[in-house]
Amino acid sequence: MVSDYKEILSDSAKGMKRSAIRELLKLTQKPEIISFAGGLPDKKSFPLEQLQEICAEVIATDGAAACQYGSTEGVPELREILAQRYRDQGLSFVTSENITIVTASQQSLDFIGKVFLNRGDKYICELPSYLGALGAFNSYGGVPVGIPQDEKGMNPEILESKLAELKANGEKPKFIYVIPDFQNPAGTTMPEERRVEILAIAKKYDILVVEDSPYRELRFTGKPQRMLYDLDGGEGNVITLGTFSKIFMPGFRMGWVLAHPMVIDNFVKAKQNTDLCTSAFLQKITVKFFQKNYFEANVQKIVDLYRGKLNAMIGAFEKYMPEGVTWTHPEGGLFLFLTIPEGLDCEELFSIAIEKNVAFVLGTVFFCNGEGKNTMRINFSYMSEEENIEGVRRLADSIRELYKRHGR
Amino acid sequence: MVSDYKEILSDSAKGMKRSAIRELLKLTQKPEIISFAGGLPDKKSFPLEQLQEICAEVIATDGAAACQYGSTEGVPELREILAQRYRDQGLSFVTSENITIVTASQQSLDFIGKVFLNRGDKYICELPSYLGALGAFNSYGGVPVGIPQDEKGMNPEILESKLAELKANGEKPKFIYVIPDFQNPAGTTMPEERRVEILAIAKKYDILVVEDSPYRELRFTGKPQRMLYDLDGGEGNVITLGTFSKIFMPGFRMGWVLAHPMVIDNFVKAKQNTDLCTSAFLQKITVKFFQKNYFEANVQKIVDLYRGKLNAMIGAFEKYMPEGVTWTHPEGGLFLFLTIPEGLDCEELFSIAIEKNVAFVLGTVFFCNGEGKNTMRINFSYMSEEENIEGVRRLADSIRELYKRHGR
Repeated sequence: MVSDYKEILSDSAKGMKRSAIRELLKLTQKPEIISFAGGLPDKKSFPLEQLQEICAEVIATDGAAACQYGSTEGVPELREILAQRYRDQGLSFVTSENITIVTASQQSLDFIGKVFLNRGDKYICELPSYLGALGAFNSYGGVPVGIPQDEKGMNPEILESKLAELKANGEKPKFIYVIPDFQNPAGTTMPEERRVEILAIAKKYDILVVEDSPYRELRFTGKPQRMLYDLDGGEGNVITLGTFSKIFMPGFRMGWVLAHPMVIDNFVKAKQNTDLCTSAFLQKITVKFFQKNYFEANVQKIVDLYRGKLNAMIGAFEKYMPEGVTWTHPEGGLFLFLTIPEGLDCEELFSIAIEKNVAFVLGTVFFCNGEGKNTMRINFSYMSEEENIEGVRRLADSIRELYKRHGR
Repeated sequence: MVSDYKEILSDSAKGMKRSAIRELLKLTQKPEIISFAGGLPDKKSFPLEQLQEICAEVIATDGAAACQYGSTEGVPELREILAQRYRDQGLSFVTSENITIVTASQQSLDFIGKVFLNRGDKYICELPSYLGALGAFNSYGGVPVGIPQDEKGMNPEILESKLAELKANGEKPKFIYVIPDFQNPAGTTMPEERRVEILAIAKKYDILVVEDSPYRELRFTGKPQRMLYDLDGGEGNVITLGTFSKIFMPGFRMGWVLAHPMVIDNFVKAKQNTDLCTSAFLQKITVKFFQKNYFEANVQKIVDLYRGKLNAMIGAFEKYMPEGVTWTHPEGGLFLFLTIPEGLDCEELFSIAIEKNVAFVLGTVFFCNGEGKNTMRINFSYMSEEENIEGVRRLADSIRELYKRHGR
């Protein structure tokens, strides 16, 4: 080995840590542990029988093209299906020129960093925000500026005053990163009026908005709120990131970007340098799922499945949690956020919980400013309803023990 | 759209061009064109019947895990199969800890850039070298230092004198990038003694070697030369990049890295930030191809297929090419390199050739120093034997017309 291996690493590599969540997941894979830690879909949501049928069809009818290199932008039929889907939701201005296929959402986040961030560039994010995004942006030397959320998402007054403060210093963040639907980790959803406010501020300060939207279609209750991309009317101020991981299968590693063609062009160039193209085989299988009307029915099945899991969990919170514990009430998605009394530390709670065979993710990893020590992210999609209830019971016991230790 | 879109792009994005080859491919997709331009496998090399059988088996027996998120390092069985394969080739020191799965070789090249290059860092490459690697390294601001090749690959005297010159200036390149087997684009193979020399120089100057090895198993003639990784004895001075794209299917977007565990650790962290994991579904299908002994038989089929295509092409060169044209004689791989007389320009030839319905890639795009105007890369794997012969006839006609235009 070269003598100076650690020194020759790039600044990017020197700054990279192993993902706290993915490393944690390894610890929590003992079968006796009820894990609320990951963000995994329920395996029951995978349409295996239809996958059998469709794989056989794709290989028989289009096998050679499926096994070959594909275009960097993605399989044209899939881009058109996604565009049509947006048009069906009222975004009449979307065409396949606004869509490029990526190797799941994490690649979009990587490209946001690659395309927009020089080392030291600032960007705006929510407090808390998705760890995978912070990690991707950080690897390009991006510097997060966190804006607190209330129950409607990013606080617009604080956002505006922060942007004004930066502007007074001659600084302009590269983009505002938000997760408007069923936020990861907080579970909050921005109502339409909040979206309008955030977009207006972004336009006033001439800053792009990145709308990360992995869970939007997993709505259990309430009315869909218009996308930021929709509210912008396709003017190019918003870049929306979609993924098949939560509404189809994460094992396919497929997602898409919805953006202005100028942005799409930069993403395509980034993709040529990073992985050339996303698997044509998997894209063609996905196309057939849409064509045979299996796709949307499966999304509905997932929504029903997760609604039941969330309700079971919320019921258990109400039944078991001691006083002083609060939680968010997501209208969809995979996560909710739990807060224990100020002054208590979820890291201490974590060791108690692991002893009682229940796991979660420390909320603090989602706060770019190190706050949130008394918070945790709870996933409700992976475990069964019964496990969700039993896990909450164990977690409540753990919190009671923490209370006791601290004389509460 | 924000008013300063082009200005807010990162330095990386500002420097990115669309891949000359991939854009060219679009131009050459007219059905009447015989294209030697791409680097595509023959679709006849795809084992579609076996794929049918194995997809059905994987979905039936392991479907849920195949559709779920996988570990960032890759499916353990696949890592072990690849390690065993290296041990079978005499690299007794390789274990699965030396292997990580990537989303095909282009992702490895991206990671080499991400993990080692700060903007302005130098690296060594061959003249000419693989465009996709130069593009990936360039996107991280890497500065190529090109070392001429002779018929045995990178010239060791020039390499050593360049490294001495850089050292005298207090500079040290981050790595030496070589493609020792059936080089892209030149088609040259380094004999073992040349590999020993290059590795000795690298160790003397304490520099990593990146051994890009996408074609190694496609040897039609001659004896395999020991890998640089093998010659290093697993000491950590060499990082080897492998891919399934040329020996199995590019549509799977799968490759691997063979390296010291310290390097693997940096790659895994990079992958967590860029796409989390490679499709478990496709990895599990690939594992079954090995387990059922379909994989190696298919590689042998590809070797036989491409040997015939290369021989047909070389025969046509000998028959049709006018005086003054020379070509390399690869012992394997997908490409050979053609040189027309000094002073003539292959860009002019390209327009003549397209009129005659034959296409190639300008050799100059592979030279980081802009040389090679009288060279071109010829792919022999994609077209049929008959098309290879007819394409060479058209290309020879085009060269004759170029000669005529320039009074030769």
